[in-house]
Amino acid sequence: MNRKQLIEQIKIKKSFLCVGLDTDIELIPKFLLDFEDPVLEFNKRIIDATHDLCVAYKPNSAFYESRGIAGWKSLIDTSNYIPETCLGIIDAKRGDIGNTSTMYAKAFFDHASSGMSFDAITIAPYMGSDSVKPFLAFEDKWVILLALTSNEGGKDFQFIDTENGRLFENVIQKANSWAGNDRMMYVVGATRAEEFLNIRKFAPDHFLLVPGVGAQGGSLQEVCKYGLSESCGLLVNSSRSIIFASSGEDFAERAREEAKKLQSEMEILLEEIGF
Amino acid sequence: MNRKQLIEQIKIKKSFLCVGLDTDIELIPKFLLDFEDPVLEFNKRIIDATHDLCVAYKPNSAFYESRGIAGWKSLIDTSNYIPETCLGIIDAKRGDIGNTSTMYAKAFFDHASSGMSFDAITIAPYMGSDSVKPFLAFEDKWVILLALTSNEGGKDFQFIDTENGRLFENVIQKANSWAGNDRMMYVVGATRAEEFLNIRKFAPDHFLLVPGVGAQGGSLQEVCKYGLSESCGLLVNSSRSIIFASSGEDFAERAREEAKKLQSEMEILLEEIGF
Repeated sequence: MNRKQLIEQIKIKKSFLCVGLDTDIELIPKFLLDFEDPVLEFNKRIIDATHDLCVAYKPNSAFYESRGIAGWKSLIDTSNYIPETCLGIIDAKRGDIGNTSTMYAKAFFDHASSGMSFDAITIAPYMGSDSVKPFLAFEDKWVILLALTSNEGGKDFQFIDTENGRLFENVIQKANSWAGNDRMMYVVGATRAEEFLNIRKFAPDHFLLVPGVGAQGGSLQEVCKYGLSESCGLLVNSSRSIIFASSGEDFAERAREEAKKLQSEMEILLEEIGF
Repeated sequence: MNRKQLIEQIKIKKSFLCVGLDTDIELIPKFLLDFEDPVLEFNKRIIDATHDLCVAYKPNSAFYESRGIAGWKSLIDTSNYIPETCLGIIDAKRGDIGNTSTMYAKAFFDHASSGMSFDAITIAPYMGSDSVKPFLAFEDKWVILLALTSNEGGKDFQFIDTENGRLFENVIQKANSWAGNDRMMYVVGATRAEEFLNIRKFAPDHFLLVPGVGAQGGSLQEVCKYGLSESCGLLVNSSRSIIFASSGEDFAERAREEAKKLQSEMEILLEEIGF
């Protein structure tokens, strides 16, 4: 899904919601454990219940890897279930030297090689340009680079002062020279709403992937106040507060209700900026 | 394998060699493709041929993930084939917010959960302390934090000047407060030999995992000149120049010869410092 198609979906659905599929098998409703692949079954029902309210799904790779082969199989089958009207983001936070990053790109972008073809992948910036560029070699795929993360430890290095602003600002400025806003997004945590204004100086119309709304305490209103751009420019992720809204048989309906609440808020926010 | 046991193995084998199992299925001898799991067969023969000459094996996760489920299975079976006399390092360069890092730790440290129980994992530092600590919660396991990587792009951010030295020096100083040299190692590329002297100021007796000798152009002599510590303190990795020394039926013997060359050099270097 390219930038134009993504913006189109945002207009159609009046939503810039990303649903995080952090599917912890310990937390899904017990009755699903009778299915051959409980995690896949859970994800399919979540997707069926929410795909008209969101524009992206983001499985976090860790929750699948923790279960070994069974988990990897759930991830592959989930990736193939994400509908074409939604951006498929693998939250993998990879990054390695060039020839190795190419292998990671094949793992998540090249269906013939791995069985998966996500539209986008999250990447850690520490190893620099040649760890990122192999992902950009895949046409029409996105790199979503970690800039300012929502966790407490994000402060340890990301806020360090450098000659070109703080480290996360330096990362954005440098990465802007690797690809344009049609191939690159940045991760900016919702728990740092006051920083969005600042980040928009360096990335005025890039899409920002924003985790941390909901369970982590970030506010959608605050994020949008400073973060919305001309082309919307935000994908706001919510994971636990949607997918684990209920642990009963009604989990999918309850997930839909939670997604609907966020989508309704987003609709108003988009109207306010005349999008 | 704890620090004492690792140092013991270095003394017994007169070696601080780590063999990188970057097993690209495109590069292994063609006759292996008749086996049920060609990559596993390749790795087993490499391990059989070299385990008395090296103290660690390091599969890079990317080469396995690129092959989807088949690759993940090769990785699990390889992890279980690494002998107890060698440190099993998964080169995965992970890192995420706390509860998610716990899932990554389960993926690579918790056999009951994932089928794998490596001794050590490489971690990217960008997300800070709470992305690293969940791995340290697993007793007797090691975190190997990226500090100064061997690739060209490593310069993009790692050399940035901060109030506490360059970024990679800052990373080492901060990470020293998260765990001692019995639980934490640092990745320092062999292509930056001149920096070892400097790094030893901050990590005088930590083990450093050193990629980049061989195919990437780093020199073992140079690395040891500045990098060897009282307790050896180095694990020097070589991947392609050992495992792909031959593409014929003699690949394992040729791998042994290459490993033996490095081990012999290491034996002399260890003698020189009276280890």
